[in-house]
Amino acid sequence: MSIDLARYGAIYRDALLDDIIPFWLWHGLDREHGGMLTALDRDGSLLDTDKSVWFQGRAGWMFGSLYNTVEQRAEWLEASRSCVEFLRAHCFSPEGKMWFTVTRDGRPLRMRRYVFSESFAAIAFAAYAKATGDLRAADEAAKALAIYLHYSFTPGAMLPKFEPTRPMKGIGAHMIGMVTAQEIRANLGDIEVSGKTCTEWITASIAEIERDFLKPEHEALMEVVAPDGAVIDHIDGRTLNPGHAIECAWFIMHEGRHRKDERLIALGAKILDWMWARGWDREYGGLLYFADVLGKPVQEYWHDMKFWWPHCEAIIATLLAWKLTGEDRYAAMHAQVHDWSFAHFPDREHGEWFGYLHRDGSVSQRAKGNMFKGPFHLPRMLAYCWRECAPGTR
Amino acid sequence: MSIDLARYGAIYRDALLDDIIPFWLWHGLDREHGGMLTALDRDGSLLDTDKSVWFQGRAGWMFGSLYNTVEQRAEWLEASRSCVEFLRAHCFSPEGKMWFTVTRDGRPLRMRRYVFSESFAAIAFAAYAKATGDLRAADEAAKALAIYLHYSFTPGAMLPKFEPTRPMKGIGAHMIGMVTAQEIRANLGDIEVSGKTCTEWITASIAEIERDFLKPEHEALMEVVAPDGAVIDHIDGRTLNPGHAIECAWFIMHEGRHRKDERLIALGAKILDWMWARGWDREYGGLLYFADVLGKPVQEYWHDMKFWWPHCEAIIATLLAWKLTGEDRYAAMHAQVHDWSFAHFPDREHGEWFGYLHRDGSVSQRAKGNMFKGPFHLPRMLAYCWRECAPGTR
Repeated sequence: MSIDLARYGAIYRDALLDDIIPFWLWHGLDREHGGMLTALDRDGSLLDTDKSVWFQGRAGWMFGSLYNTVEQRAEWLEASRSCVEFLRAHCFSPEGKMWFTVTRDGRPLRMRRYVFSESFAAIAFAAYAKATGDLRAADEAAKALAIYLHYSFTPGAMLPKFEPTRPMKGIGAHMIGMVTAQEIRANLGDIEVSGKTCTEWITASIAEIERDFLKPEHEALMEVVAPDGAVIDHIDGRTLNPGHAIECAWFIMHEGRHRKDERLIALGAKILDWMWARGWDREYGGLLYFADVLGKPVQEYWHDMKFWWPHCEAIIATLLAWKLTGEDRYAAMHAQVHDWSFAHFPDREHGEWFGYLHRDGSVSQRAKGNMFKGPFHLPRMLAYCWRECAPGTR
Repeated sequence: MSIDLARYGAIYRDALLDDIIPFWLWHGLDREHGGMLTALDRDGSLLDTDKSVWFQGRAGWMFGSLYNTVEQRAEWLEASRSCVEFLRAHCFSPEGKMWFTVTRDGRPLRMRRYVFSESFAAIAFAAYAKATGDLRAADEAAKALAIYLHYSFTPGAMLPKFEPTRPMKGIGAHMIGMVTAQEIRANLGDIEVSGKTCTEWITASIAEIERDFLKPEHEALMEVVAPDGAVIDHIDGRTLNPGHAIECAWFIMHEGRHRKDERLIALGAKILDWMWARGWDREYGGLLYFADVLGKPVQEYWHDMKFWWPHCEAIIATLLAWKLTGEDRYAAMHAQVHDWSFAHFPDREHGEWFGYLHRDGSVSQRAKGNMFKGPFHLPRMLAYCWRECAPGTR
């Protein structure tokens, strides 16, 4: 079985250039205060003027990357610049850590313990620096990554959520660290940040993921484990996030291709296999949001809903796995998740994708964006997969 | 239209005494370490040994109340005592604020900003003091209520979740304050705590709810508002919780009956009317979890799910409204929510109720309990409504 790359490439290109990107440029870009508004209703009208700091970085990166890798369109560079300038002007607290949400005009609303605002700002600065040659932005990218690494990996730096009775660590810090370092390396070269090169940070995170989070005895990639990698047999410790793990799988395969390292490619493909088996809904199709490693009930209420982003990550992962291994079943899995996603998520009337479906694929909530959905997972998938489908890419 | 009190009373009594209470006594009561385990699977087997501090208080109160108001069964007093002693031994931090979760043997896991552990401990101590005459428990009830009142109503006492850019206040602090004071008054008399009697605290909270949270122009009771009562036109500010507001409605009607104050009864009935109209699902039946005051999309993913507890609160509220006003439509509403609930939530195979249904009434998650579901809303409803159905109660 094979993938018709020309056919799929056209689908991804058309969705990216004719639907998703115009939707966000038209409805999301804030021409009054700069930056990106993401809380948009089905038709693009504004539901909430508050701004997600994550999305100033994510959109700044997305539009900068399109400019760098697809075509040098002035409107894309302008959108990236608008987000970068909003980040600079309004998104850093006096202590240097970044806000989580701000008002439309940039007054702070909420600070969180964790540092994903910083990682997304780092990739925005890096893509913008690449697009413009702005040395200040390159420096800001390295500094934002350094803040991210400090809070994520220096013991005691991040405010704890729990008492020290039962310590645990999450895979998210490693995944985001890895993809952030990959993007900075792609745009600024393999620079050194906080004592290691980007490649060395990536190596360290993959090693820790493989050593502590990957559980061959369960055929699963855990979301959280004890500091020594032990499975924590409580509800939170047992909860798997198949879409998140499949995203991790393609980050590792992507790195394997970059390094021409077949072992990493095989590691990523194995994670994809295991977590696809955990997450694919054999009754209704699509990917379930959460699953318990021992098959017990999950506490989070939306455990069996179908969110847009795990499907985007699985479309990338299956396409990449097929390209890198040539194995038939990845072509079949790609067709399966592509078809289910394109049958259920797109809004034929107003464009873009719905984000939140019930288990059976019916729409739960009609909005196009909020503080967690905006121009990131979907256009990233479309751009990545369009590129993968182009003739001549391995 | 009328309510057949004898028929409904038998349903509530049988469910309480033959199903719900035995389930929790058998599966939940921790005979090894004391206190109540609530993370139970469908058949009562243990999903997680961690303990909710809320539920040590809630169960301690529930069993103490059954002993005080239904029958002096030794096993109920023993269950209450077990929870009270677990609270005393393990649930207070060195600073006096209470934990949110602890391990099975009582080691601290998580502290939260808010103080609902304290309010539930207060009602447990009060019911236990009433049952036993234990003066220490009476004193502990007053002290826990004082901590609750301090953190909830002293400006600056509670760690803020948001920056001061857009201040807001929630109705939850007033609702829990009101019902906690009602329970302490019922068991210990109208004692003075932190400078006001229980009745005065209740009066103040009802006044603030009516002045700042009730919006006749929207026919809605808001969950959060600005300090001056203005509607905050952002997603969080617009989000209504009909089941929560209907719970507030019966707290106010209950107070109205206690005071023989027809104005309070009418206020509660109005809230019930408005929020029933907001929450009742005209397509599938049952109460939706969230709604936007302007009819816009809600961000929380489970907005259209059917949870057990709003239905419990609505069964109480409609029965009480009918008893206090005699209006036909409350009898119809009571039949509607009673029938839907008893058709969808009970587990005919293993007993007790499922907690989390999809919008269409199908079961989303099979567990009987977790850190938020245990022996509280459901047995409280059954006990309250059984009592209301007894001959001779007004």
